[in-house]
Amino acid sequence: MANLDTLIQDLVIANRILAKEDVVDAYGHISVRHPDNPKHFFISRSLAPELIEKDDIVELGLDGQPVKDEKRSLYLERFIHAAIYEMRPDVTAVVHAHAEDILPFGIAKATPLRPVIHSGSFIGKDVPVWDIAEKFGDTNVLVTNMDQGRDLAKCLGGNNVALMRGHGFASAARSLIEVVRMSVYLPRNARALMRAKMLGGEIKYLSQGEIDARNAGYSPYSTETWRAWEYWANKAGCGHMLTRPDGGHVHKHDHKHDHKK
Amino acid sequence: MANLDTLIQDLVIANRILAKEDVVDAYGHISVRHPDNPKHFFISRSLAPELIEKDDIVELGLDGQPVKDEKRSLYLERFIHAAIYEMRPDVTAVVHAHAEDILPFGIAKATPLRPVIHSGSFIGKDVPVWDIAEKFGDTNVLVTNMDQGRDLAKCLGGNNVALMRGHGFASAARSLIEVVRMSVYLPRNARALMRAKMLGGEIKYLSQGEIDARNAGYSPYSTETWRAWEYWANKAGCGHMLTRPDGGHVHKHDHKHDHKK
Amino acid sequence: MANLDTLIQDLVIANRILAKEDVVDAYGHISVRHPDNPKHFFISRSLAPELIEKDDIVELGLDGQPVKDEKRSLYLERFIHAAIYEMRPDVTAVVHAHAEDILPFGIAKATPLRPVIHSGSFIGKDVPVWDIAEKFGDTNVLVTNMDQGRDLAKCLGGNNVALMRGHGFASAARSLIEVVRMSVYLPRNARALMRAKMLGGEIKYLSQGEIDARNAGYSPYSTETWRAWEYWANKAGCGHMLTRPDGGHVHKHDHKHDHKK
Amino acid sequence: MANLDTLIQDLVIANRILAKEDVVDAYGHISVRHPDNPKHFFISRSLAPELIEKDDIVELGLDGQPVKDEKRSLYLERFIHAAIYEMRPDVTAVVHAHAEDILPFGIAKATPLRPVIHSGSFIGKDVPVWDIAEKFGDTNVLVTNMDQGRDLAKCLGGNNVALMRGHGFASAARSLIEVVRMSVYLPRNARALMRAKMLGGEIKYLSQGEIDARNAGYSPYSTETWRAWEYWANKAGCGHMLTRPDGGHVHKHDHKHDHKK
Repeated sequence: MANLDTLIQDLVIANRILAKEDVVDAYGHISVRHPDNPKHFFISRSLAPELIEKDDIVELGLDGQPVKDEKRSLYLERFIHAAIYEMRPDVTAVVHAHAEDILPFGIAKATPLRPVIHSGSFIGKDVPVWDIAEKFGDTNVLVTNMDQGRDLAKCLGGNNVALMRGHGFASAARSLIEVVRMSVYLPRNARALMRAKMLGGEIKYLSQGEIDARNAGYSPYSTETWRAWEYWANKAGCGHMLTRPDGGHVHKHDHKHDHKK
Repeated sequence: MANLDTLIQDLVIANRILAKEDVVDAYGHISVRHPDNPKHFFISRSLAPELIEKDDIVELGLDGQPVKDEKRSLYLERFIHAAIYEMRPDVTAVVHAHAEDILPFGIAKATPLRPVIHSGSFIGKDVPVWDIAEKFGDTNVLVTNMDQGRDLAKCLGGNNVALMRGHGFASAARSLIEVVRMSVYLPRNARALMRAKMLGGEIKYLSQGEIDARNAGYSPYSTETWRAWEYWANKAGCGHMLTRPDGGHVHKHDHKHDHKK
Repeated sequence: MANLDTLIQDLVIANRILAKEDVVDAYGHISVRHPDNPKHFFISRSLAPELIEKDDIVELGLDGQPVKDEKRSLYLERFIHAAIYEMRPDVTAVVHAHAEDILPFGIAKATPLRPVIHSGSFIGKDVPVWDIAEKFGDTNVLVTNMDQGRDLAKCLGGNNVALMRGHGFASAARSLIEVVRMSVYLPRNARALMRAKMLGGEIKYLSQGEIDARNAGYSPYSTETWRAWEYWANKAGCGHMLTRPDGGHVHKHDHKHDHKK
Repeated sequence: MANLDTLIQDLVIANRILAKEDVVDAYGHISVRHPDNPKHFFISRSLAPELIEKDDIVELGLDGQPVKDEKRSLYLERFIHAAIYEMRPDVTAVVHAHAEDILPFGIAKATPLRPVIHSGSFIGKDVPVWDIAEKFGDTNVLVTNMDQGRDLAKCLGGNNVALMRGHGFASAARSLIEVVRMSVYLPRNARALMRAKMLGGEIKYLSQGEIDARNAGYSPYSTETWRAWEYWANKAGCGHMLTRPDGGHVHKHDHKHDHKK
């Protein structure tokens, strides 16, 4: 139970980080798979990520429905998460958001979004663009049932990120920390590419070998990964909520950011 | 009276949200129609939106003049609101502002502003550009009388937003919450379109069917709409002022943002 | 003396506003002419504008030298102010700054900076670009003596703003409030024009008649002008320092911004 | 020892400034050479720059290894610093960071990054681009050993800044204050050039004579240089930590920024 408590606490931190880093606003969400039951996952009830606390987290099944009696409203688009967990057993955490600077790449298909900076390597070499209209025609553009969620998951395939035309993106990763990092650096990579295009001339993308080398070196509790998680949590005002699942002590400056900003 | 008090409180919140979200600065304003008297509307006296409190709100008629004795200065451009309420009985709330990122679309007419992202759908398929000079020649570019207001309202027609060349925009909606949401996402849609143009190639706009489907699903007190209102109010430091007109309780974290930021 | 105290207090406020609005950073300065002695002006000693208080203000002559014994270091570029006051008896206040978004227009001369939005009208129809190298060859690009200051003032001529190639701008106006407003909206006008150029097609500039109409309606203590000054002062954390020189009371919410942010 | 204490305190301030000014985020680092032992330098253990305090600073040799027993994790890329100190006896301080707006110039080689604004002059006339793949093939793009560090230092040569393709930059200077100033204004110069390119037409760069004149006038404790250091330290919430190594008193407003923001 201690581990589960920590995981849910980390999910709260992840919500606050994504809000502070402008990946989500009132909309967008993040989930994590149940560590002991791969057919369940945790996500907030319908609430802006910045306002989420532990008791806002609900447990859903792979059909996107709550596993316990639940009177509170749920995210309309929870099926994005359910369908990705269903199709991708390797995935532990999922983000769906509308981060502004990735939107142009889903609208103007002439320029594919690909990694150009080292912090963007985790999005993977190919980022497919899913257009809900191709299969479902005129909708409200939201993913509101399992059929739509599965179509998106199919487009995502074995990749880490799919853009959603006129809407946002879905990202999937091996850990909560990784999906947060990927989702924070995804818009940064998009801006770097957009501006490089404006400067003109040939673009130098990361090579497949570079992407692979970076991916091979990833570990969710390495010093380097933890450094970002600790920084973002402090910046988002929840340094005091940090726990190192490896049992290590949390950095002494946990509350610093609250005082400084 | 309780309802009216709540509405005026919501108008104060709306002002603060628009300031925090950079839709208005010292200039720009928002109004709401009187629920019991469609020939009156509420708007602040001449004051920067961020500084507005309940006793700054005044009641005006459809001629743009105060209905009670009023010694304080009024917004020069209150006729924008009066004329739109006069011409559009379906409209309950109006914003006029100079949000920076919509300005290029009123200056460079080569690219019409149209929805490209789902959160921009509410601006509607067509966003006409009104040029005060066409009818009124050389002016100070402000809408300072009913003639000018009516000309703008005529250009707006049945649409939700009109751009005003070299000046800003006017938006009109069915509720205070809707006009705020439209006005916050309007510049975001403008940025997404501007950057998509820079990436080059064909632009994929929202279809009419998608715009209609999103519009049909709108309700000012749906969970999804309220989620944004609650988030923005907290971010603007006035979560403690929130009231749900449907009688529901306000979220427990009302004051959180004040502490966190 | 009361008036002089108020003026100096307003100069402190103006410094803080320009810092908060990103017109200046550690560098850049603002001055105001002595109301009773047109051959003197007030400006801070060498200090970042955000940190300035009343006792940092010094009184200089039109040669850029202090009129009283002064041991503290002065701004190297105070000659910009001295030379403009010398050449332009109509000018009461001067700003020199490096606001980022005007810089491209001094570097790439293909696109002249001209007003495209109503809040930018006060920069005037023509904004000349001064290149220190034309007369002085290779320098450190700073205006460090009266000769250089006079050459800049000559380029400024009867205009309100001159861009300085690879450096920044100088703006001159009839009042402290006007020069602040012009300097805040100058970069906004630059951004609007830059983005309109990127959208392509013909640009619609403000007409000479529109610029004149707006200029004719300007008054430093009109409700509309004061509204911006009050807003910016509150935003910069010095609402409590506001005084209305016309004897009117200051708005009740002076300290609000300090609490809210 | 007093001097060394002050230097380490200044290194802490420098870390906080670079974080506040968005030059670094969780990643990126700054070091300073030991004043009494040119074969040693100071840098933080592996920690986000914003969270660094005095006891996080470690002392490394020119092989990038700690000179005392050290159990804490170190920055993987500390070899950037070691190799530059080894090759450049004139260098006292080094920054490595991923500041977003310089990234496009390392990806799209068509436009060389060169100084166009006076505050960017310190980057020097030429800014070489180092591509780790040229010598080392497919790597994780990080500089994780002396061989890679030396190859980067060789590309840097006698210049002040080298861009690192798809990664960031390394800058080297005569003092801690200079390397901070250069690193803060480097992205600003990049933005000014990028936007000037978008406006089109010929670009006017700073001349070699202008760069030389500015460089000749630089002194780390001149009034002008100190003004920026004092401003940035206050903005980063550590005005109270300021010490003038020339024995002068620190400005009275040290804590101001903490109260105001």
